[in-house]
Amino acid sequence: MSEQSDSRNTLYLDDLQVGQRFVTGTYRMEADRMKAFAAEFDPQPFHLDEVAGNNSIFGGLAASGWHTAAASMRLSVTGGMRLGSGSVGLGGEISWPRPTRPGDILHVETEILEIIPSRSKPNQGIVKMRSTTLNQNGEEVQVFVVKIIVFRRPA
Amino acid sequence: MSEQSDSRNTLYLDDLQVGQRFVTGTYRMEADRMKAFAAEFDPQPFHLDEVAGNNSIFGGLAASGWHTAAASMRLSVTGGMRLGSGSVGLGGEISWPRPTRPGDILHVETEILEIIPSRSKPNQGIVKMRSTTLNQNGEEVQVFVVKIIVFRRPA
Repeated sequence: MSEQSDSRNTLYLDDLQVGQRFVTGTYRMEADRMKAFAAEFDPQPFHLDEVAGNNSIFGGLAASGWHTAAASMRLSVTGGMRLGSGSVGLGGEISWPRPTRPGDILHVETEILEIIPSRSKPNQGIVKMRSTTLNQNGEEVQVFVVKIIVFRRPA
Repeated sequence: MSEQSDSRNTLYLDDLQVGQRFVTGTYRMEADRMKAFAAEFDPQPFHLDEVAGNNSIFGGLAASGWHTAAASMRLSVTGGMRLGSGSVGLGGEISWPRPTRPGDILHVETEILEIIPSRSKPNQGIVKMRSTTLNQNGEEVQVFVVKIIVFRRPA
């Protein structure tokens, strides 16, 4: 099961099933935006400057992992699984198996792992899903297994 | 053991011990920056607009969790535990126990949980630590248990 996102089609808890998969559009990581993001939020030499990147463990300019995370969120919110009640994450496990580079074109693939209806709040539940961010070579640059709050369709 | 950060004092693997604690400076979450961050990376109504926030599960304008994460990274990189080789995260568990609000003044408290020397690479190791982001009322807005790569002091 794989479906392209459709802006006309917002989803609620009732519409989701374990194993459902969603694929987002794409986002290009630009060197200038990578450096500006890092200057504001993660000012480490290997995120700010090509030469420092070359001489670092990354072997080249690398995006802050939080820039990769933020870009992945943009992809998921504007495409992928469009939830009628929004995407409110409680938390999860994040990893960055390899760096994101200037010019990388990212997309996110999400799979629903578990659906847990709330006992106390009948209009909502918790959905556990794995959102994998891939580059243009199909390599994983981020894996985020997250629990989000999802609401039932309003009556 | 609690120590304020000191820009003159960069740390290497050799300097770290389980139980060591580090406290950062502060970062103020501004409504305008929250909305601009959300417009770029997490364009959901409750992150963009006070009225939509009031009518949402957050009960008010709330920062994107990724903005809280990015601000927390800035605090950790510019204060807290200053690592001579930089802070390169492999991944970890992140959670947002409560939302971040306009005007919140955040700081991060980090505790070293585990130090795992590398068997194959004698000049480095993995450090597991818990970085908790707190608001001005001492309430946790983010907890991040992360593994980072830390190098030994160059010979």
